[in-house]
Amino acid sequence: MEREPRRLADALAEVRRVTQSLAAPLSAEDQMVQSMPDASPTKWHLAHTTWFFETFVLAPRAPGYRVFDPHFNYLFNSYYESVGPRHLRPARGLLSRPSLAEVKRYREHVDEALQRFLREGGAVADAATLEVIELGLHHEQQHQELILTDVKHALAQNPMAPAYRDDAAPAARGAALDDPPPLAYRPCEGGLVEVGHAGPGFAFDNEGPRHRVYLRPFTLGTRLVTCGEVLDFMADGGYRRPTLWLAAGFEAVTRGAWTAPLYWEERDGAWWQFTLGGSRPVERAAPACHLSYYEADAVARWMGARLPTEFEWERAAAGAPVGGSFVESGRLHPASPTPAANGALGHLYGEVWQWTASAYAPYPGFVTAGGALGEYNGKFMVGQMVLRGGSCASPRSHLRATYRNFFPPDARWQFSGIRLARDA
Amino acid sequence: MEREPRRLADALAEVRRVTQSLAAPLSAEDQMVQSMPDASPTKWHLAHTTWFFETFVLAPRAPGYRVFDPHFNYLFNSYYESVGPRHLRPARGLLSRPSLAEVKRYREHVDEALQRFLREGGAVADAATLEVIELGLHHEQQHQELILTDVKHALAQNPMAPAYRDDAAPAARGAALDDPPPLAYRPCEGGLVEVGHAGPGFAFDNEGPRHRVYLRPFTLGTRLVTCGEVLDFMADGGYRRPTLWLAAGFEAVTRGAWTAPLYWEERDGAWWQFTLGGSRPVERAAPACHLSYYEADAVARWMGARLPTEFEWERAAAGAPVGGSFVESGRLHPASPTPAANGALGHLYGEVWQWTASAYAPYPGFVTAGGALGEYNGKFMVGQMVLRGGSCASPRSHLRATYRNFFPPDARWQFSGIRLARDA
Amino acid sequence: MEREPRRLADALAEVRRVTQSLAAPLSAEDQMVQSMPDASPTKWHLAHTTWFFETFVLAPRAPGYRVFDPHFNYLFNSYYESVGPRHLRPARGLLSRPSLAEVKRYREHVDEALQRFLREGGAVADAATLEVIELGLHHEQQHQELILTDVKHALAQNPMAPAYRDDAAPAARGAALDDPPPLAYRPCEGGLVEVGHAGPGFAFDNEGPRHRVYLRPFTLGTRLVTCGEVLDFMADGGYRRPTLWLAAGFEAVTRGAWTAPLYWEERDGAWWQFTLGGSRPVERAAPACHLSYYEADAVARWMGARLPTEFEWERAAAGAPVGGSFVESGRLHPASPTPAANGALGHLYGEVWQWTASAYAPYPGFVTAGGALGEYNGKFMVGQMVLRGGSCASPRSHLRATYRNFFPPDARWQFSGIRLARDA
Amino acid sequence: MEREPRRLADALAEVRRVTQSLAAPLSAEDQMVQSMPDASPTKWHLAHTTWFFETFVLAPRAPGYRVFDPHFNYLFNSYYESVGPRHLRPARGLLSRPSLAEVKRYREHVDEALQRFLREGGAVADAATLEVIELGLHHEQQHQELILTDVKHALAQNPMAPAYRDDAAPAARGAALDDPPPLAYRPCEGGLVEVGHAGPGFAFDNEGPRHRVYLRPFTLGTRLVTCGEVLDFMADGGYRRPTLWLAAGFEAVTRGAWTAPLYWEERDGAWWQFTLGGSRPVERAAPACHLSYYEADAVARWMGARLPTEFEWERAAAGAPVGGSFVESGRLHPASPTPAANGALGHLYGEVWQWTASAYAPYPGFVTAGGALGEYNGKFMVGQMVLRGGSCASPRSHLRATYRNFFPPDARWQFSGIRLARDA
Repeated sequence: MEREPRRLADALAEVRRVTQSLAAPLSAEDQMVQSMPDASPTKWHLAHTTWFFETFVLAPRAPGYRVFDPHFNYLFNSYYESVGPRHLRPARGLLSRPSLAEVKRYREHVDEALQRFLREGGAVADAATLEVIELGLHHEQQHQELILTDVKHALAQNPMAPAYRDDAAPAARGAALDDPPPLAYRPCEGGLVEVGHAGPGFAFDNEGPRHRVYLRPFTLGTRLVTCGEVLDFMADGGYRRPTLWLAAGFEAVTRGAWTAPLYWEERDGAWWQFTLGGSRPVERAAPACHLSYYEADAVARWMGARLPTEFEWERAAAGAPVGGSFVESGRLHPASPTPAANGALGHLYGEVWQWTASAYAPYPGFVTAGGALGEYNGKFMVGQMVLRGGSCASPRSHLRATYRNFFPPDARWQFSGIRLARDA
Repeated sequence: MEREPRRLADALAEVRRVTQSLAAPLSAEDQMVQSMPDASPTKWHLAHTTWFFETFVLAPRAPGYRVFDPHFNYLFNSYYESVGPRHLRPARGLLSRPSLAEVKRYREHVDEALQRFLREGGAVADAATLEVIELGLHHEQQHQELILTDVKHALAQNPMAPAYRDDAAPAARGAALDDPPPLAYRPCEGGLVEVGHAGPGFAFDNEGPRHRVYLRPFTLGTRLVTCGEVLDFMADGGYRRPTLWLAAGFEAVTRGAWTAPLYWEERDGAWWQFTLGGSRPVERAAPACHLSYYEADAVARWMGARLPTEFEWERAAAGAPVGGSFVESGRLHPASPTPAANGALGHLYGEVWQWTASAYAPYPGFVTAGGALGEYNGKFMVGQMVLRGGSCASPRSHLRATYRNFFPPDARWQFSGIRLARDA
Repeated sequence: MEREPRRLADALAEVRRVTQSLAAPLSAEDQMVQSMPDASPTKWHLAHTTWFFETFVLAPRAPGYRVFDPHFNYLFNSYYESVGPRHLRPARGLLSRPSLAEVKRYREHVDEALQRFLREGGAVADAATLEVIELGLHHEQQHQELILTDVKHALAQNPMAPAYRDDAAPAARGAALDDPPPLAYRPCEGGLVEVGHAGPGFAFDNEGPRHRVYLRPFTLGTRLVTCGEVLDFMADGGYRRPTLWLAAGFEAVTRGAWTAPLYWEERDGAWWQFTLGGSRPVERAAPACHLSYYEADAVARWMGARLPTEFEWERAAAGAPVGGSFVESGRLHPASPTPAANGALGHLYGEVWQWTASAYAPYPGFVTAGGALGEYNGKFMVGQMVLRGGSCASPRSHLRATYRNFFPPDARWQFSGIRLARDA
Repeated sequence: MEREPRRLADALAEVRRVTQSLAAPLSAEDQMVQSMPDASPTKWHLAHTTWFFETFVLAPRAPGYRVFDPHFNYLFNSYYESVGPRHLRPARGLLSRPSLAEVKRYREHVDEALQRFLREGGAVADAATLEVIELGLHHEQQHQELILTDVKHALAQNPMAPAYRDDAAPAARGAALDDPPPLAYRPCEGGLVEVGHAGPGFAFDNEGPRHRVYLRPFTLGTRLVTCGEVLDFMADGGYRRPTLWLAAGFEAVTRGAWTAPLYWEERDGAWWQFTLGGSRPVERAAPACHLSYYEADAVARWMGARLPTEFEWERAAAGAPVGGSFVESGRLHPASPTPAANGALGHLYGEVWQWTASAYAPYPGFVTAGGALGEYNGKFMVGQMVLRGGSCASPRSHLRATYRNFFPPDARWQFSGIRLARDA
């Protein structure tokens, strides 16, 4: 995306519209639920992304801008310490006020001011301001995915298993139901390679600097691990055999009484899963999803493979098109793979985020920016693992080969799955 | 109340209407908040009281009654083990569905069936059925008070301190602000007396059987303990002096970092409290409120007195009119006492529930009824203390001299305060 | 016991000697273990009882007494707030120093000073001082029982199931093994009766004042509930049927995954229990033991009975001899009942403490003494239930009809069991 | 060390003797304390290291070996899932039995069998067996350090602050007290370098395979960060400024109420620290110690630097002698640095372990061995950070440039400190 004010204004309007459309199937009540401290209510996402623009763009840079409500700086700051104290994360679900209607007015107020600023005052907006707006746009795309994963977790707590949208997660038909293409391993060259972002396009700070790493030759699985393979892992006692697991992983299994991926449930001998379309049968051929890093690591070990490092993944993905199913498809559930031609790598993007064996860490030469936005990524660089690719809930335009997603190793509520690797 | 079908139908219609009117100032979002496991969302109270009539009256006894939604038996059962498994109490705030609109339809469905049953089929309704309906009516009155105390707790968690109703808890005027009547102690005779309920009027199972207890002569404080007295207790280091407290009480002080009653907050040297009307100054002359049993016990000790037993209280209240301010007044906050004539006992009812020194236990000869309704009171008879009187949030018609309210000794979110006693 | 200095000196020497003899089978390592916050290491009991005499008798009243080690006031104060800050209770097991040898020197130092004080200075000791010494003596007897129950809990955590003394808990022989006398209910008169302590003998502050209570006629089970009856309760699904339990009791069952009394374990279809003599078969005829109040209440309900109030028990025990097996017998495990003659009440004392239906509360007119010793009992008068009688681990001379023991309703590590009652 | 049976027997005898000598200053009571789940009692370390030889060498490989006590396999297995179930780690401090005397007999029994096996049967011992013995020897050295760090934590809980050995942590004298050499940064070349272990000497599995990594040029601090620098960090509000910290780090600060390194305490305006020699003044010139990764990271940021990666450290250390103070010096506390000549890197080994910025992960091509010993390191490769160097509590012969120690980022009870780095 270019940083030309009018184009940015158009892009911004579109991203903001998409956010609203994702919230649209949900009632005001649905948009209030917070089902765990790590997840946030939809209403909070709507307000927080708006607060981002108000706090980092409008209030400091737009002449004459009137803050919508001074309380909101306290309520909708996520984690920016430099911006002042903030509401406790686990208490976000207690906020019946401001109402959803008020939050919508907040969005309109800020949207109007942003458009006016970009279309009128934007002529004089400096590059730094445009950069912050572009960051805000990508930030909002991140929250679009979280709206879906968080509300999925929220609805899953309801014994009535209500759907987010009845037409989501449609059943597979025909061959796709049971027969995934065979799993092969595609060889990839090693050597001294460059990874990370460089160049004019947008990237988050954590994607750079571009730098050299040395890789040994390796192979990558040509498709994602399927539900059928996870069912076989389960049938082979996978969740009960500690030697298949990292020690911390088996502790998580025990503590959480895990016997299957998140949202899976056995009823009358068949496995069902909660999806954004409600309860659906588990399909053997579909990519497995809602797995923690620990489960991904154990299943890979059980399959005689390992997880790729983030650089192996990036090396293999460099230059490949961003194809697969994303949020725009409306499926909101990973699709079964179509056979990839001759050992090509299928589903490098879309369907499920792919856990890598890499701990989330700064790249050599990484320095955080000054000010509050310097807190964007750097301060989370411990205790988390990198995921690559993108999922059925990600906006397609949000993804690229250098993109680094990250979650703690026990996180399961994202659309996260498994790509296998092996030493060559 | 007589158990004549048409009269019962009228009373029922009125109680059900009052419940709706208590929920009316709250949005669908407000009615979803659950701020702690002990409190429930308003929407849940609306549905649960309805479920009570559906489950214990209509489904088993009304010919041709159609259950509104079979899921609701799981969602809105509070604690009746005999009726089957139930939704986890701490997860009530996660139920965005059924929506409030759906719950209102549920109420209408059940109300209509109940009225039809009583007005048409009621002619043949047996005494047992009418008794259950009467129980349901008093049960619903209990939940009316909980709607107010639970939503107060919910709104208090919101940093914006929103009011339930702006006109609640109006400021005192003139003399009432600072000068409570002097505290005196009125002597009461001891001896072998009868306590507990007997006779034709309604009472809960825990109020009987009527039985004899032996009391020594005692005196009772002529008015409730005031906020001014609690402020003096605080100024005297009351919350920091372990020897004023029961051991478990001082543990609660330490664990909860209590330095004042619940909802009190110091700002710029003055004390404010959250009320159903929003934030209000603490008034020295008003009855102190939102105190745990532990605090009541410690303040009494500091004042050279003790709490009365529930039988001392009942003995003193026997025959006195049920006067004071109740939910009907719309104040929803304890009112400052008006001087009582010549050492009479003021505010025996209304304003705040009065903690007694009596652990909640069965009366001699108490037997639980069979079936699910036998679970109504008996199974809570351990680990709780009895409160007597009634509060500014209680329906007046719900109260009587034999009424036993009960809460754990660390509970503070009820309108609970202090009546003093001394040995004669 | 008379408060004559020389006699007190003799009694004191004997009680102190008994404490040492109870610790004798344990190594220094055994005497250090603290297996839960509610239990204390043997070494701590040895030091704490000594600290009591040093702090309340020698330091303030014995001219020229030299404090053994100033650190000990911090380490061995149990809960006396007035005496200053104290070591955290759950950390008592971390005290490898002072060593057991040092604690023994501490005991000798204090014993010598006490004997000298009583035999030489005692001539001038005032009545108040002698009273405190007598209190210290009974206080030490309480800790004698705790030494046994706490070390039993400690040894039970060891997978090797080591015995405290190999000859403890000997197997029953012959008829005692399987055939308890039949359970009958002995009628007791009600009426206005006096309970509580009065008169010259020693009693704790919580046993008075003597006062009148009104009782309805009742009956008491002629023997304690047996292991066989508890096995039948278990076989009937007792631990899985919520309607048999108080609500808080069933929560404790669920939280603790209780399926049997504490220390019971099923191996190859037979039930075993950990005793102070190691692992032993459960004997059907022996009194059931290590039950919480919740279990006692549920088993009583299942047997169509209830627990007696503490006053019913005291009324029935008044005048009966203190017979049964106590710590002096060396069995250290409840003995099977011998048939009582003609409906007499067996085992009123000894074997197991008997849970009553009475919450622990002050008697009418109870006032705490001033100073630190005023903290002795009064501050625990909430949230606990009264037990009566005495156990196989109690010193016989410590017991009497007015004695009130008390524990929280979920406590199981005492020798606590069940006496049944019914309305007449 | 060569894998020649007689030499191995000599080395083994020496290592086993050293272990005993480290336990020698501690009483049986001291050797039982477990002050947190992550630490183990000395007695447990003595038994566990012995169990290692019994389980992996003697039982499977020494003809005619008699297992000392079959219970011990359950009690003293640390985490080897393949060897069967094991005693719960947090309950190790409850094991008064086996007694210390019994554990000593266990050591003698196993030592004698090992020596006999190596000196007699060793002639025929195969290479695999000798390798396991050598592993056991290095395993025991790891536990030697843990004996010291764990008992330090245990003694630190005692309000009497008892010393492990009175002559440990002697005071610095003269210049060493206040004036560390100035901090400089020594440049190091980048490029494609080899790291990791290869060759005939002993190394743990996690040190290999040797492999290539690409490094950018960097600089390393010429000395360790001092207590004086940490005091300045504290004075500058370091523990209260969230923007200096990783997000998870500041959560740890808040949760643990950290205001200084572990074991530090302010008394009358001066800072003291608990050492193995008891309480000692904090010396400004001495290397700072008992810091978590989070603190190391924050202090580095505050000093305008960062932590080195493990490969930067290894690159700089390659070829340097293993000098510094180790457990053999008997100081058992980090010594103040002596000025290093002309910008050389001081204290690369000894004094304190140096946190690196590298998450603990497998090297490319790492594969775990089969069987129980395959669990040695691999299963901990998530959620931990690598430390390099070695400390004043490490045996000198245990260390080398490729050695990878690892602990979770919030661990503070090891002798862990800070080496700074910067981009060149």
